[in-house]
Amino acid sequence: SPGLRFRLPFVIILFQAIFLTLFSLFVTYNEHTDAAAQTNETDHSQNELYEIFPLFQDIQVMIFIGFGFLMAFMKQYGFAGVAFNFLTANFAIQWALLVQGFFNHYYHGKIHIGIYNLINAEFACATVLISLGAVLGKVSPIQLLVLALFEIPIYVTTEWTISEYLKISDVGGSMVLHVFACYFGMSVTRVLYRPGLKDGHSKEKSSYQSDLLAMMGTIFLWIFWPSFNSALANRGDDQHRAVIHTYIALSSCTLTTFALTSMVEKKGKINMALIENATLAGGVAVGTSVDMMVTPGGAFILGCIASVVCTLGFKYLTPFLAKHLKIQDQCGIHNLHGIPGIVGAIGGIITILLSSEDTYGLSLYETFPHRAPAHDDPKLSEMVRLLPVLKAGAGRSASEQALYQAATLGVSIGASVLGGFLTGLVLKLPILAQLPDEHCFDDEPYFEVPELEEKELNQIK
Amino acid sequence: SPGLRFRLPFVIILFQAIFLTLFSLFVTYNEHTDAAAQTNETDHSQNELYEIFPLFQDIQVMIFIGFGFLMAFMKQYGFAGVAFNFLTANFAIQWALLVQGFFNHYYHGKIHIGIYNLINAEFACATVLISLGAVLGKVSPIQLLVLALFEIPIYVTTEWTISEYLKISDVGGSMVLHVFACYFGMSVTRVLYRPGLKDGHSKEKSSYQSDLLAMMGTIFLWIFWPSFNSALANRGDDQHRAVIHTYIALSSCTLTTFALTSMVEKKGKINMALIENATLAGGVAVGTSVDMMVTPGGAFILGCIASVVCTLGFKYLTPFLAKHLKIQDQCGIHNLHGIPGIVGAIGGIITILLSSEDTYGLSLYETFPHRAPAHDDPKLSEMVRLLPVLKAGAGRSASEQALYQAATLGVSIGASVLGGFLTGLVLKLPILAQLPDEHCFDDEPYFEVPELEEKELNQIK
Amino acid sequence: SPGLRFRLPFVIILFQAIFLTLFSLFVTYNEHTDAAAQTNETDHSQNELYEIFPLFQDIQVMIFIGFGFLMAFMKQYGFAGVAFNFLTANFAIQWALLVQGFFNHYYHGKIHIGIYNLINAEFACATVLISLGAVLGKVSPIQLLVLALFEIPIYVTTEWTISEYLKISDVGGSMVLHVFACYFGMSVTRVLYRPGLKDGHSKEKSSYQSDLLAMMGTIFLWIFWPSFNSALANRGDDQHRAVIHTYIALSSCTLTTFALTSMVEKKGKINMALIENATLAGGVAVGTSVDMMVTPGGAFILGCIASVVCTLGFKYLTPFLAKHLKIQDQCGIHNLHGIPGIVGAIGGIITILLSSEDTYGLSLYETFPHRAPAHDDPKLSEMVRLLPVLKAGAGRSASEQALYQAATLGVSIGASVLGGFLTGLVLKLPILAQLPDEHCFDDEPYFEVPELEEKELNQIK
Repeated sequence: SPGLRFRLPFVIILFQAIFLTLFSLFVTYNEHTDAAAQTNETDHSQNELYEIFPLFQDIQVMIFIGFGFLMAFMKQYGFAGVAFNFLTANFAIQWALLVQGFFNHYYHGKIHIGIYNLINAEFACATVLISLGAVLGKVSPIQLLVLALFEIPIYVTTEWTISEYLKISDVGGSMVLHVFACYFGMSVTRVLYRPGLKDGHSKEKSSYQSDLLAMMGTIFLWIFWPSFNSALANRGDDQHRAVIHTYIALSSCTLTTFALTSMVEKKGKINMALIENATLAGGVAVGTSVDMMVTPGGAFILGCIASVVCTLGFKYLTPFLAKHLKIQDQCGIHNLHGIPGIVGAIGGIITILLSSEDTYGLSLYETFPHRAPAHDDPKLSEMVRLLPVLKAGAGRSASEQALYQAATLGVSIGASVLGGFLTGLVLKLPILAQLPDEHCFDDEPYFEVPELEEKELNQIK
Repeated sequence: SPGLRFRLPFVIILFQAIFLTLFSLFVTYNEHTDAAAQTNETDHSQNELYEIFPLFQDIQVMIFIGFGFLMAFMKQYGFAGVAFNFLTANFAIQWALLVQGFFNHYYHGKIHIGIYNLINAEFACATVLISLGAVLGKVSPIQLLVLALFEIPIYVTTEWTISEYLKISDVGGSMVLHVFACYFGMSVTRVLYRPGLKDGHSKEKSSYQSDLLAMMGTIFLWIFWPSFNSALANRGDDQHRAVIHTYIALSSCTLTTFALTSMVEKKGKINMALIENATLAGGVAVGTSVDMMVTPGGAFILGCIASVVCTLGFKYLTPFLAKHLKIQDQCGIHNLHGIPGIVGAIGGIITILLSSEDTYGLSLYETFPHRAPAHDDPKLSEMVRLLPVLKAGAGRSASEQALYQAATLGVSIGASVLGGFLTGLVLKLPILAQLPDEHCFDDEPYFEVPELEEKELNQIK
Repeated sequence: SPGLRFRLPFVIILFQAIFLTLFSLFVTYNEHTDAAAQTNETDHSQNELYEIFPLFQDIQVMIFIGFGFLMAFMKQYGFAGVAFNFLTANFAIQWALLVQGFFNHYYHGKIHIGIYNLINAEFACATVLISLGAVLGKVSPIQLLVLALFEIPIYVTTEWTISEYLKISDVGGSMVLHVFACYFGMSVTRVLYRPGLKDGHSKEKSSYQSDLLAMMGTIFLWIFWPSFNSALANRGDDQHRAVIHTYIALSSCTLTTFALTSMVEKKGKINMALIENATLAGGVAVGTSVDMMVTPGGAFILGCIASVVCTLGFKYLTPFLAKHLKIQDQCGIHNLHGIPGIVGAIGGIITILLSSEDTYGLSLYETFPHRAPAHDDPKLSEMVRLLPVLKAGAGRSASEQALYQAATLGVSIGASVLGGFLTGLVLKLPILAQLPDEHCFDDEPYFEVPELEEKELNQIK
């Protein structure tokens, strides 16, 4: 496969050279990583690192072990599942550090970085890995890198636009991350439609061992999802609620999934692929409202709904989309990230419509900074007297905030569909080493795969 | 299997509906998760979340990865091992949040929750998962949920009674958690005795791959056991000692186990099942005294003793119990949790008998609050002058405290034997989808298991 | 195998008895673990435990899961890979607690321990596990214990000498840990040269499943390497930089490795063994300069260089060393730890030569304590006025510091080559149960290995 021997190294080395140049020219330390910024008054235990390092490591496990082994669920695509995830994630994170750096951390002619840059880059990376799920096994590693190359700036621009102009709440990223990543991936896979796979593919199967490793990936994602959903919440009670709500939603989602998988499958048997995926949908569906006062019962319901839509999606919607809309969604990301993300957006809207000072006290204006009275509103100074950390906002009402949330969902879907479509067109360029159908879902074209040896075969016989 | 198709979904949905109702009606935020409780004076970095979140995540890994993959050690019961653990643990945690909530966090008509509730619920859940080890592979998932349904309130009641009336020290749960869980499970498996399995079962075996995954489960349990044993200790030096002692005890236990497994097995070969289990016994045996001044040498000895009793238990006691007392202890929980738990209780008693103000200073009365002088004792005010945080206790002497510890062991065994017996009777009800012997230790009745395909078989031939 | 039945238990029990005696006689609590040291003024949230516990747990995962499963990459040596790592690591940690305790924490006739002792012992343990990589599959477990028995005190003495007399910076241990461990292991394997293996061995192969588990080991090592490299850095910005730099170096190293593996392998296919190893080299190469102001671009370059030297080393140097110098380096530790460690040393030297007060401010003298003005230098008091925590140093210039760094590299190589040679001679003693060539890379002599059963064979046929 000449695509690997020459083109993959060429693409990687080219971009490593570019990234290295950009890192060398533009990336420097922020005040928490710069030695020279430390003065006499610096209390090292207040370094930002300590706020978030354990969460950062949890998210790392999600990205590299969680996604990696969940994507290794096919029996002849295990090496590719875990290794291409490793490759793509690293590429995406480097690129995101640069792009996000230019958008958000660029001043005095430099990008200033610290641990929060890494976390934000991992969020951007998660977007790429989710989209990747739609085309898993059907694209070359070069295509994966190009996917990341396009998706990262489109995601960052969208996210920046939303945070700059719509100023909404979505700390778990239901809309901005999951919905975006899903519809981006759906668009890409639509453009890359393979008629030859419409009746399935002989290698598109799991084995006993691959399912167990995928289950390990799932469980690591499941365990550390509370860290993911709370990482970007305000410190204190907001972050604390994010942990509790994520946990409850995942838990109700998991139990509901066990019930549903028995019901929808033939002979009532449990389908491991459903357990590996649908048990996670609760974490997506609670993402927007996760730091709000959604109540434990509310998180519980969101988890149940997520499981229902996800399980039914896998059973009925995915085949429908493949057959009638030519959208071949390999890992079912529409079921795990798309619909639960929309459920999350709606959950956020409802929670916001029900939110008031009665429930939140003045914290309302910390959780929703744009609902704080505007600069010139006399109420502001009165509030600041009671809670000095409060900042002026935009004086939005609950329903105004809800409208902005709805608009965000629209922007996220629009930008991702369009961005994915354009990216898909690029990915179709013949130079990118498109795979023939018969090489899909197979490690063989890319990896030296150990063979069963004659001796073992004799032993078995 | 109609049991799955109709009964399992029915049971899960029924209880999810009940739990959801209870969550919606009764569960609300505590002062660390409630937005409205945050005032002007709230320092968010003091939120309880940050005290314990890394330990919480460690314990999550133990529950879902550790137990899950350790229980996947049988070659045809891997899906069930990890998936039923996932199912049962989630059910148990939800139920424990409610039951423990009503016992310990119920006021103003609501259960108030935060991260500590989740940790306590995971401790309760661990009890169920340990008991499950006795009947692994021999019960249906419905029976597992019923097991959790009964064991959680019996455990919580026992634990509440002990902490309310006996007021003892057992932060690692040797007596209250491990011994309880063990004898509960032993009782259940006694009631569910299967004469058909007295000569073993053809599927009751591990494979090379299943042993490696089980070993991964073991090592994750082993690594994070210091977090488990220290999570509920007093902050500061007590928690620090708990980490150190657990580590030392696990370490000496592991080395001793490697020595013993070679000695007791035929041809001196190492038995992986022993390594997967007995290396953990030190964590159990040090549980009661883990935050006390048991000394590093003391922890070392407890680890060695735990390994000896556990290894000999697997080799000689488990077959004896199966043959003569009709107790078929599938995973050998009596060896890993029962006897080491009793060793832990005795270790705690000895450590307490040797404890005095000489060794602990006034901290003695923080580690053992009930040894502090009573309200009306003039010594109290003198001590409070030196250490203002001290609270009045019950003025117990070392030997009185030791007696209460011994009583706790008795209560724990009594309550668990009785509770397990009753639960076992319920589990025998025909409606709960009891498995025929030939379906034991087999994923096939419950899961869609990937088959080797003809093509692969040809390839192998 | 009588070696196991009698000799292994004998050796373990003998040393457990000795260690227990030493623990009982000499090991006690330090001020952060001793109950009696807590006074009225103790603020428990300031206990050292909380500074470092999450990093400690990350490093535990590296030692037991990371190394363990990476060493399980051979298809018939999986049990041994993970279990002997477990055995050796525990032995090494206990022994290191004692030896390091006598060197660094011995006063009032006792060794005083706390969490930092455990972390330092894990660093010493890592040394043994790296050396073990050179002889993996070719030595008996007894030989592994003897290896640890010798390597730990030689390492601790070398490290103590360096820190006492050369006073250099190497928080990630590129020189002191990786280079030392590598050349120690290379010497040992040279002495244990097996001519019978010069044309390879039929069992020296991976399988699909063993490569996936090894990849999991690799990824856990990769994820938690920032914790390893930052654990011993100064708190605050130094530790923060160590995290960022390690991450960047690992990331550029990983991408470069994907490019190179395609280029050097036949047909351009990716070699999983290279991915499992060379992706980690960046963490080694950035180790010395990791807490310095090496710049993000500098860390990026170090990662790229590490990948290049490591990949080329695997491809060309390892076969060369085996053929011409009779050094059979089983896991290629020279490529992963040796050359990248030297790259790290050089990186450190260059970084130091470029360091000045312009870049670091007065923090320069915290990151490099021996560059602070000496006691009698009038500049000191002026600096202390600006930064009161500063301590007197040795007044070294940048180039003097660089010379000491270079000297350290020399000392590390010298001590390890010599120490490894002597240890190798001991390991050759016939009493230590040397393996015949045909038993290499095989679990069978040591473990009860589950067999495929007749029934399965029939099913397959």
